Amino acid sequence: MKIAVLGTGVVGRTIATKLVSLGHEVTMGSRSAGNEKASAWAKQSGKGAYHRDFARAAESGEIVFACTAGLGTLDALRMAGVLNLRSKVLIDISNALDLSNGFPPVLSFRGDDSLGESIRRAFPEVKVVKTLNTVNAEVMVSPARVPGDHDAFVSGNDIGAKAQVIRILHEWFGWKNLIDLGDITTARGTEAYVLFWLQLMRGLKTTDFNVQVPKQ
Amino acid sequence: MKIAVLGTGVVGRTIATKLVSLGHEVTMGSRSAGNEKASAWAKQSGKGAYHRDFARAAESGEIVFACTAGLGTLDALRMAGVLNLRSKVLIDISNALDLSNGFPPVLSFRGDDSLGESIRRAFPEVKVVKTLNTVNAEVMVSPARVPGDHDAFVSGNDIGAKAQVIRILHEWFGWKNLIDLGDITTARGTEAYVLFWLQLMRGLKTTDFNVQVPKQ
Repeated sequence: MKIAVLGTGVVGRTIATKLVSLGHEVTMGSRSAGNEKASAWAKQSGKGAYHRDFARAAESGEIVFACTAGLGTLDALRMAGVLNLRSKVLIDISNALDLSNGFPPVLSFRGDDSLGESIRRAFPEVKVVKTLNTVNAEVMVSPARVPGDHDAFVSGNDIGAKAQVIRILHEWFGWKNLIDLGDITTARGTEAYVLFWLQLMRGLKTTDFNVQVPKQ
Repeated sequence: MKIAVLGTGVVGRTIATKLVSLGHEVTMGSRSAGNEKASAWAKQSGKGAYHRDFARAAESGEIVFACTAGLGTLDALRMAGVLNLRSKVLIDISNALDLSNGFPPVLSFRGDDSLGESIRRAFPEVKVVKTLNTVNAEVMVSPARVPGDHDAFVSGNDIGAKAQVIRILHEWFGWKNLIDLGDITTARGTEAYVLFWLQLMRGLKTTDFNVQVPKQ
């Protein structure tokens, strides 16, 4: 499949590398076509790995992963262009964290909005599904790094898009347990969760962890 | 033991009822000594159940549970009075949620502060330990309502106070798995987590759930 991965950070490179290893044709998108990190990634990854600017990358993808820093997501999608994204499944992994004042990051939203929803408002024809932002990049594509049962969460309004994303998480990335939280407003929960994740990381002194949700 | 429970809502009543059932002498504190909910609770609970205003309740307690709504916690503690709280272990269960504009609630903090920390700043001689705000009231005192292994979290700066709270959660409330996240700043994580809890509740259609943290 032809896939666009927007973003050249750890999340973008990890997702893109995994997709290439599965035999997909992956185009990493960045602000400028000559981005050094994207270029180095494509060179290192070899066959099936390309890099272009956001618009060309989005145009090439049958599905699109949004992996930029959260503050840059909407800008990146605007540069990608509404026509290049229209009717496509957009897997939003970005986190609604503002690091402009350094560490600790603060949430961009207090619970009455989310990045997932703001993407949907700005691009109503895009089928946005929020997922994977609750785990470390390596765990996203290798959930078996964490022992035992543990869960990934999906939020989105388009049932078909959500089913496709669940299939991708299951069959490509190896996720066994997936919880469909509901529509895209449920991204408010998983986006706020990241503050909890940061404190758990401090307490557990590892990034190879996740949560499992036992219920009655 | 003599215990003060500040707050007359579901959390306060559930905690206080559990403590009475264990044979403790529990005083429920409220803004005014004549509070109807506190009075009804004490009457219904019988032996060992009392109700007073915040100051008299705090004075009576060897340890103090803060179970008010988050926006009212600091006010309640000011009314309780610094002399009545001094050097005591304060178990803060309140949530940093602002419901003044109705549902959905918004977080009072974005990740650069927490209710736990603000209590510690306002009452530096109080040994504040944040815990249990990540589960429903019934689960707080009956963790076995949720099947399997699942975790409660504690945050606090005083090691001895934290050890005492861990013992209380373990021996009185029946918690098997406790994660010490670290100092009180880690309450930023568990307080933000509540937005995730709210979305999970929507998705799972039950309040009898919790998370377990598998790690490498």
